[in-house]
Amino acid sequence: MNYDMITAAADRLRGQARRTPLLSSPFLDEIAGRHVLIKPECLQHTGSFKFRGAWSAVSALPEDVRKRGVIAFSSGNHAQGVAMAAARHGVPAVIIMPQDAPRLKIDNTVALGAEVVLYQRATEDRDAIGAQLAEERGLTLIKPFDDPQVIAGQGTVGLEIAQQAAEAGVYQGDVIVCCGGGGLSSGIALALEHDAPGLRVRTAEPEGFDDAARSVAAGEIRSNTAMDGSICDAIVTPQPGNLTFPILHRLAGPGFAVSDDDALRAMALAFLRLKVVAEPGGAVALAAALFQPDQIEGDAVICTISGGNVDAQLFASALARYPQG
Amino acid sequence: MNYDMITAAADRLRGQARRTPLLSSPFLDEIAGRHVLIKPECLQHTGSFKFRGAWSAVSALPEDVRKRGVIAFSSGNHAQGVAMAAARHGVPAVIIMPQDAPRLKIDNTVALGAEVVLYQRATEDRDAIGAQLAEERGLTLIKPFDDPQVIAGQGTVGLEIAQQAAEAGVYQGDVIVCCGGGGLSSGIALALEHDAPGLRVRTAEPEGFDDAARSVAAGEIRSNTAMDGSICDAIVTPQPGNLTFPILHRLAGPGFAVSDDDALRAMALAFLRLKVVAEPGGAVALAAALFQPDQIEGDAVICTISGGNVDAQLFASALARYPQG
Repeated sequence: MNYDMITAAADRLRGQARRTPLLSSPFLDEIAGRHVLIKPECLQHTGSFKFRGAWSAVSALPEDVRKRGVIAFSSGNHAQGVAMAAARHGVPAVIIMPQDAPRLKIDNTVALGAEVVLYQRATEDRDAIGAQLAEERGLTLIKPFDDPQVIAGQGTVGLEIAQQAAEAGVYQGDVIVCCGGGGLSSGIALALEHDAPGLRVRTAEPEGFDDAARSVAAGEIRSNTAMDGSICDAIVTPQPGNLTFPILHRLAGPGFAVSDDDALRAMALAFLRLKVVAEPGGAVALAAALFQPDQIEGDAVICTISGGNVDAQLFASALARYPQG
Repeated sequence: MNYDMITAAADRLRGQARRTPLLSSPFLDEIAGRHVLIKPECLQHTGSFKFRGAWSAVSALPEDVRKRGVIAFSSGNHAQGVAMAAARHGVPAVIIMPQDAPRLKIDNTVALGAEVVLYQRATEDRDAIGAQLAEERGLTLIKPFDDPQVIAGQGTVGLEIAQQAAEAGVYQGDVIVCCGGGGLSSGIALALEHDAPGLRVRTAEPEGFDDAARSVAAGEIRSNTAMDGSICDAIVTPQPGNLTFPILHRLAGPGFAVSDDDALRAMALAFLRLKVVAEPGGAVALAAALFQPDQIEGDAVICTISGGNVDAQLFASALARYPQG
């Protein structure tokens, strides 16, 4: 796992992933007390950065392997990213989802061309189902974060941040990244180490689910004690990955933990001031940048909005709670 | 008013205006029955394309004129565009607004550094107030659309569309543009005439307020019979401008009229499928592309989302009415 894999992924992603802009607003600067630059990956295909890693991984497979198809376990953003990446390569994708996944997410994944296989959380072993399907059909598993090509794909966000921050005159400061298993944050960290050494990644996670921050602080992998109870469910994972953790340990600064309320308020501000849709887990980095200014140094801070796949009702409730942001 | 003024405006706007991406979604393609490419100018500074024209006009003033300041009549997107353009030039801006303008719009304009002068719609003559202030202080009036430098600034959207459509392999088809006074649509039309002659502008307006479409069809300027009654209030104007109309007459195809309900539904789909915030008037072009497919020819259509300055309550009501888009 190294920088060259990221530039190679960028080559494969050219003309496929969108180059998302770097946004800002004087109103957000005012709240944060410094210049805030936002990388809105909610504008990426399928509404999250996950398309980058999925495309990177699928496109890196040898053709005879790829044509047999890919498989993924996900009820969320990774599922849609893999589905679209496979469809655009013209190869089959099987997505294993729990039967109680939101109907819209199942429908979206099917509409993107994937075969969705549902399982009962309580009684069935998804890994066994997946392993059997993979063996029968010769499918390749695309992991959500702990895969070098997936990390390389997410790292292309870091290449763009380095370039766009330089265009904005920003060479020093923190880059706060929404963090689940650490694919996006570790990929960005590797890219910045090479392209913008004055920029340092710091993770943002939901309060009570800040396994990455605690792992980085401890110098060894720490797990979350629970998996349920945050509205930022898209970025709740048991612990950092075996590939992502060492990168974060080496390169990342102290992580942030963000309350659900601050995530909702950041969603409302992204609506009001940036005109983009952030999902709760996608808003935690912006929330940290805006509402934890004392934990940040320097004149400028950069943050990701990692995804925008939020249902209308939850989004409306965020706007109702914070109608003026 | 010619193409060279647009490229000159683009030079002045470099590093100032955002280059907004060109978005798409297979879900929207499915609804429209063709490939739909969306230019989201809601992501522009101040949440609408208006910043481009305002910056173009302010930056084109001779320095000794500019430093005395500028003045505009607007309660909406033009006000914010002029306020930010003036502030970034370090010159004063006075914005004349009706006293009953939404508090948030007044506050935003003040926060962007402008002096807001309120008048009573019923009893006061805003033109007289503006003329007196302009004379006293030597302010230059920045008109919302019927000014060559404003049209040139909005035309930079067309330069980007020509380039981005070519990157997407689209050289033929309609470019549907949200239309009030016609500054954006005439500017884009001039840019496309030169850079992408296979692309043709068509205006989109609210039903009952389609003065541009009727004017183009009639070959002479026609007015709206009313000014109130559309939720797309940001793009309701009495009639096309004296500069914008001849350009549209020469270059634009038949215009679209869009119902309030279709605008709301397009807002919900922009939320769900593109993760961007569209205001009602900013959604009419997308609504035409999606819901009037029989009025369009070809494999691809391009449309603008011209702005995203909508209050949280109205936005939430659009999502409540069309939760699945």
